[in-house]
Amino acid sequence: MEGFPTLVSFKESRLKLAEVIKYRILETIDVALEDALNMVCAEDVLAPIDLPEFDRSAVDGYAVVAEDTFGSSPNNPVELKLIGRAHAGMNPSDIPRVNRGEAVEIYTGAYLPEGANAVVMVEHVNKSDGSIEVLYPVSPYQNVSKKGEDYKKGDLVIKKGTRIRPWHIGALAALNIPKVKVLRKPRLAILSTGSELVEVGSELKLGNVVNSSKPMLKSLLKEIGCEVLDLGTVPDDLEIIKESIKKGLSMADGVIITGGTSVGELDLVPEAINSLGKPGLVVHGIMMRPAKPTGFGIIDNKPVFILSGLPVAALVGFHNFIKPAVYMMLGLPEEPKITIRGRLTRRVANPHGVRSFVRVRVIRNGDSYYVEPFMLTGSGLISTLTKANGMLVIPEELEGYDEGEEVEVELFQPIDAASG
Amino acid sequence: MEGFPTLVSFKESRLKLAEVIKYRILETIDVALEDALNMVCAEDVLAPIDLPEFDRSAVDGYAVVAEDTFGSSPNNPVELKLIGRAHAGMNPSDIPRVNRGEAVEIYTGAYLPEGANAVVMVEHVNKSDGSIEVLYPVSPYQNVSKKGEDYKKGDLVIKKGTRIRPWHIGALAALNIPKVKVLRKPRLAILSTGSELVEVGSELKLGNVVNSSKPMLKSLLKEIGCEVLDLGTVPDDLEIIKESIKKGLSMADGVIITGGTSVGELDLVPEAINSLGKPGLVVHGIMMRPAKPTGFGIIDNKPVFILSGLPVAALVGFHNFIKPAVYMMLGLPEEPKITIRGRLTRRVANPHGVRSFVRVRVIRNGDSYYVEPFMLTGSGLISTLTKANGMLVIPEELEGYDEGEEVEVELFQPIDAASG
Repeated sequence: MEGFPTLVSFKESRLKLAEVIKYRILETIDVALEDALNMVCAEDVLAPIDLPEFDRSAVDGYAVVAEDTFGSSPNNPVELKLIGRAHAGMNPSDIPRVNRGEAVEIYTGAYLPEGANAVVMVEHVNKSDGSIEVLYPVSPYQNVSKKGEDYKKGDLVIKKGTRIRPWHIGALAALNIPKVKVLRKPRLAILSTGSELVEVGSELKLGNVVNSSKPMLKSLLKEIGCEVLDLGTVPDDLEIIKESIKKGLSMADGVIITGGTSVGELDLVPEAINSLGKPGLVVHGIMMRPAKPTGFGIIDNKPVFILSGLPVAALVGFHNFIKPAVYMMLGLPEEPKITIRGRLTRRVANPHGVRSFVRVRVIRNGDSYYVEPFMLTGSGLISTLTKANGMLVIPEELEGYDEGEEVEVELFQPIDAASG
Repeated sequence: MEGFPTLVSFKESRLKLAEVIKYRILETIDVALEDALNMVCAEDVLAPIDLPEFDRSAVDGYAVVAEDTFGSSPNNPVELKLIGRAHAGMNPSDIPRVNRGEAVEIYTGAYLPEGANAVVMVEHVNKSDGSIEVLYPVSPYQNVSKKGEDYKKGDLVIKKGTRIRPWHIGALAALNIPKVKVLRKPRLAILSTGSELVEVGSELKLGNVVNSSKPMLKSLLKEIGCEVLDLGTVPDDLEIIKESIKKGLSMADGVIITGGTSVGELDLVPEAINSLGKPGLVVHGIMMRPAKPTGFGIIDNKPVFILSGLPVAALVGFHNFIKPAVYMMLGLPEEPKITIRGRLTRRVANPHGVRSFVRVRVIRNGDSYYVEPFMLTGSGLISTLTKANGMLVIPEELEGYDEGEEVEVELFQPIDAASG
């Protein structure tokens, strides 16, 4: 039994993570629009047509020759002969041509009749039988959506590497593009180690511990767009651990192993990883708390992650190493975080060189926010996550924050107003 | 043809929305943990057991009687007889009892042997054959996770009304709770109206417009946890529109109708809604831009929404009325937005009494952020959404923002650094 051979700083371990992940490239697949949400676009999508495909009315009103309306005013309206009607969706050949002195009643989205070059809004017209009085002039192409004004054929619609959001789906649909090339979802396998672990819903015997990290990690992975493979729970046996990791690597893009990560005699996971291929473990033991026993490495060009079996440490390890790795695999920038500033209700200390992740409760009192830190120990206490609503990160160069100091907190749950 | 009978202010329409939505109550269902992510918890969940269920070691080390270690130091270590080993998951009856002068080798998570009341960390011990030297004292229950220290039986684990996040799933699993009562997903039906509309992937004829709002809205609804029912596209025919709304109301918790929302003769949707039941349309025409033709009402205690068929207006209407309605149905607070402050590159004007939603592009240049507003017109131009990365809201009491003024922008896409 001994400590980690070398503890690596948080910053250095993040740099090494970037080296590890560069090996993996996800294939591209074609998906239908309705399956494209939050997938990463794998090609520059160019507009295949002009949008709109034709000049169309942007309002309900009257299609006219703009020049006919010049000089009109409520005191001096211009009378135009009403020669027909244009509804959205009508075949252009069924819409009469507009000549000087004429107008066609037109609806939003309808094809602009031949000869017309502007639309007078319905509010700016007096209508009578067979004719209209135009009260205000329109300039050429006023109230007209011109052919190609949204996208011209060949315009860039979605840049390669963009995460597809609902408005991208709208744009693809508008351009009549029913499918899009995306990166397939990263597939990650989870292996739980620990002879004490049982599945949720089991009949508990004294000494058993329910595997809580696995269902939490599954939902975390699904939420960032991964497919999850469950490799089950294995006892502390080197050969069985090795076989399970090999199976995971053959089926997935990477393997996450929980438990077996501290440094006791039964911690067979590092040995298993190092025996399966080069370079094996790259980092094991990071100067952070909780989650010091986090590690990662490479086998057959695929990443392997070690997370603590304790849920708080597993969560912190996930957020700082697995989520960034998945974003790197997808070529996405890190997401901005929802943060809030508030005053610390008591001092929090930080050991030299360590990055600490302190669960906090942010409380609002009127217009002021207060940040109440939970104890820094207890990475086994999942209640600190369900009671907290934010995470305070103390960087390695600071010795901590003082009581009353204003700090920035990442929010992961809503803030309640102070109850008392 | 005439304008909206009464335009309602944005604030008043939001108040009326709250009145409309109070009628709907979603039933509760039981779901397995793996299906519970992002569902709304429908009961106060109490811990059914103590967690941990037994005193267990929080570290790798040696279980001892704390009093034996008092006064120990590297110069004056205390020798204890090693009488056995305790692994995580071992049956307590297989673990020897620790008496004064004795120690048991113990691993993280293992049952604390009878008689022991503390654990000395492995780093604070010299081990030899059959005995250990303790170099530093431990106090009673040091390095022990005490029975019930995470949750005591009966503790509140998840409050009713909480959206279930991954750490809640972890907590439920840790407490061996395999199922949880949640509100079922709101079910919303979408009806598209407009004789010009065709589905994406159709062969386009001149005058056709691809329905882009429907796939966008479907993905927006799914993203906030709704089930979506597609009522298809209907032509501008009062009876057909009425039948489709009735069908939607019979199958869903509410109906969203796109198109047919401005004020032409062919705008049959308001008439259809008002003829189907009381009170019918509550708001139609809101002092906002875009999305002025947004509306909502009640038929048979179920909400009905009207959105513009133009994608930008549909999106703004969705974010300001449908998303809040869904959150009200679920009893959830509004989510905090990801915002950024930057300087406007040019003035944007706002008509009196109107709330404007301006698509903007936020650009980073070194440490400075600049906000470039897009034109306020063009709610038909979906390209303003794919080119923008943020939304600037101008409240009704302001006449606009000046060039160079610092404004707060809601981000909906990542910020690129300025390219030139």
